[in-house]
Amino acid sequence: MSLAVKSIKSLAPLLDRVLVQRVKAEAKTAGGIFLPEASVKELNEARVLAVGPGGYDKDGKRIAVSVQPGDKVLIPQYGGSPIKVNDEEYSLFRDHELLAKINE
Amino acid sequence: MSLAVKSIKSLAPLLDRVLVQRVKAEAKTAGGIFLPEASVKELNEARVLAVGPGGYDKDGKRIAVSVQPGDKVLIPQYGGSPIKVNDEEYSLFRDHELLAKINE
Amino acid sequence: MSLAVKSIKSLAPLLDRVLVQRVKAEAKTAGGIFLPEASVKELNEARVLAVGPGGYDKDGKRIAVSVQPGDKVLIPQYGGSPIKVNDEEYSLFRDHELLAKINE
Amino acid sequence: MSLAVKSIKSLAPLLDRVLVQRVKAEAKTAGGIFLPEASVKELNEARVLAVGPGGYDKDGKRIAVSVQPGDKVLIPQYGGSPIKVNDEEYSLFRDHELLAKINE
Amino acid sequence: MSLAVKSIKSLAPLLDRVLVQRVKAEAKTAGGIFLPEASVKELNEARVLAVGPGGYDKDGKRIAVSVQPGDKVLIPQYGGSPIKVNDEEYSLFRDHELLAKINE
Amino acid sequence: MSLAVKSIKSLAPLLDRVLVQRVKAEAKTAGGIFLPEASVKELNEARVLAVGPGGYDKDGKRIAVSVQPGDKVLIPQYGGSPIKVNDEEYSLFRDHELLAKINE
Amino acid sequence: MSLAVKSIKSLAPLLDRVLVQRVKAEAKTAGGIFLPEASVKELNEARVLAVGPGGYDKDGKRIAVSVQPGDKVLIPQYGGSPIKVNDEEYSLFRDHELLAKINE
Repeated sequence: MSLAVKSIKSLAPLLDRVLVQRVKAEAKTAGGIFLPEASVKELNEARVLAVGPGGYDKDGKRIAVSVQPGDKVLIPQYGGSPIKVNDEEYSLFRDHELLAKINE
Repeated sequence: MSLAVKSIKSLAPLLDRVLVQRVKAEAKTAGGIFLPEASVKELNEARVLAVGPGGYDKDGKRIAVSVQPGDKVLIPQYGGSPIKVNDEEYSLFRDHELLAKINE
Repeated sequence: MSLAVKSIKSLAPLLDRVLVQRVKAEAKTAGGIFLPEASVKELNEARVLAVGPGGYDKDGKRIAVSVQPGDKVLIPQYGGSPIKVNDEEYSLFRDHELLAKINE
Repeated sequence: MSLAVKSIKSLAPLLDRVLVQRVKAEAKTAGGIFLPEASVKELNEARVLAVGPGGYDKDGKRIAVSVQPGDKVLIPQYGGSPIKVNDEEYSLFRDHELLAKINE
Repeated sequence: MSLAVKSIKSLAPLLDRVLVQRVKAEAKTAGGIFLPEASVKELNEARVLAVGPGGYDKDGKRIAVSVQPGDKVLIPQYGGSPIKVNDEEYSLFRDHELLAKINE
Repeated sequence: MSLAVKSIKSLAPLLDRVLVQRVKAEAKTAGGIFLPEASVKELNEARVLAVGPGGYDKDGKRIAVSVQPGDKVLIPQYGGSPIKVNDEEYSLFRDHELLAKINE
Repeated sequence: MSLAVKSIKSLAPLLDRVLVQRVKAEAKTAGGIFLPEASVKELNEARVLAVGPGGYDKDGKRIAVSVQPGDKVLIPQYGGSPIKVNDEEYSLFRDHELLAKINE
């Protein structure tokens, strides 16, 4: 879905939502060989841009989300809400949908 | 669904419901180019008009909703209860269905 | 479903149920123009006639329903249990199914 | 389902169950006009014959059912467990399935 | 399902399960008239043979089952796990599936 | 599913899981008559080989499983995860899926 | 799904997730006979490489996962999120999906 906002930075996720942008695959392998276009699409790494204040436990207290802005994360193959701002694509996930943090 | 009320302001959402009106897309791009009618429909930004007093946690205490009247929010592609008052369209969402707040 | 009771007033909703009667649409627009029969059917406003004592939270304490007899409410497009008493139609909703209170 | 018990009074509902017998529709209208057989079948009023000791809340304490033997209640169009004793028909409902109490 | 145990008495139901044996319908009516074979099958009365120690509430405490060995109960039309021991048929129900106790 | 472990004894079930092996039906009846192969398959008795440390209640405390290694149990007709070690078949059940303990 | 990370060690599972790698079946039987390729695929043993910090109980406290890095586990036939790093295949499971620990 498209947004008319000037910058993605104006988006503040609600509850336990996490705003991420998929990392663009480099068009070469780890070994330095360049890949054809078709092979570079399916990378499931994303950079966290913003996180919500957390959902609620059963007593109405916030549970902090598991990641922070700047973190690199492994996102699931399917799911998330796609967003398009200035022709760039982003996604919103619930915190529990993120699979792993990728240490760099 | 249609309402015979004189003003949308007479609507007070119940529990965790949030009354919003979709922001009308400007018929030009961020760069100032005018867009044909067909391109301007899908904007998922909405203005919050009124919020409910919040749902209940398991102890029967209210959990305040995440947004306030005047906030601009990112709404999901599908869902919500459409309402029509004086030929204007509005929607009611549950608080947890709203995806993000849009800072201005 | 039909009831043989003499008056709708003898009905006391149980738990979190709310007894309402749909507001009959006036056969003219806000601007005063009379409407053909077919246009006046879909109004989703209802008057609350009676409310239950509330459902239970997880500790067995009652949670009061959100509306009171006399309130005007926005009801959902679908759902509710229809009742017919003396040829008048009424509906029973659970409290959380009601969308908004309509201030007058 | 049929039972071989001598009297319906030997049935003690368990947990939050309520034993009711549908009120037979009188074959005339409130205004005194006699109705053809086909019109008198759908009455959803029932007399409560016996109630269970109540279900449990999450702490294992009983929650009393909402009605008492002798109460007249509005039952839903569908649902309930039909029982036949000595050619009379009865039904067992869960307490929360009963829609309203009918004051007399 | 069949069991090779010598006696049904060796079965101790787990958690909130209740072991019952359906009461065989007498082949005559309450009034003493003998019934053809086909009419006597559907009786939903059963004798409780053994009960489990009860399921757990959310604090890990046992909730005692509602019936005791020797009780006569009304069982639902469908459901339960059928067991066959020495050509006799028995059933295991969860406590909350039993509809009513039949006082004798 | 197959395992390459040398002995089934190296398997330690997790959470509330119970490792069982179906009791092989004797090829003769209780009365001593030998049965054709086809009649001896459906026995739902199993021997408990190992149990998990228990699942968690809502406070994060363990709930012990209902059976112990060595117990004979009645298993349900369907369900469980089949395992094959050294051509012998075993199954893993959740504790609450076991129907009854069989006293010997 | 593919990842561009240099080493699987950079993956830190979130919440109650467990990162495992399936143990490669040896191409010979326990008795030392070599197996054709087709027979060695279905082994459901996996080595735990990394575990998440645990999910939350209803009070927002962490529940530790049941296994540790280095543990050998029995994984279910279906499920898990497959990951591919440097042409090696891994999977992420939720802690409660793992069936058993395999002691060595």
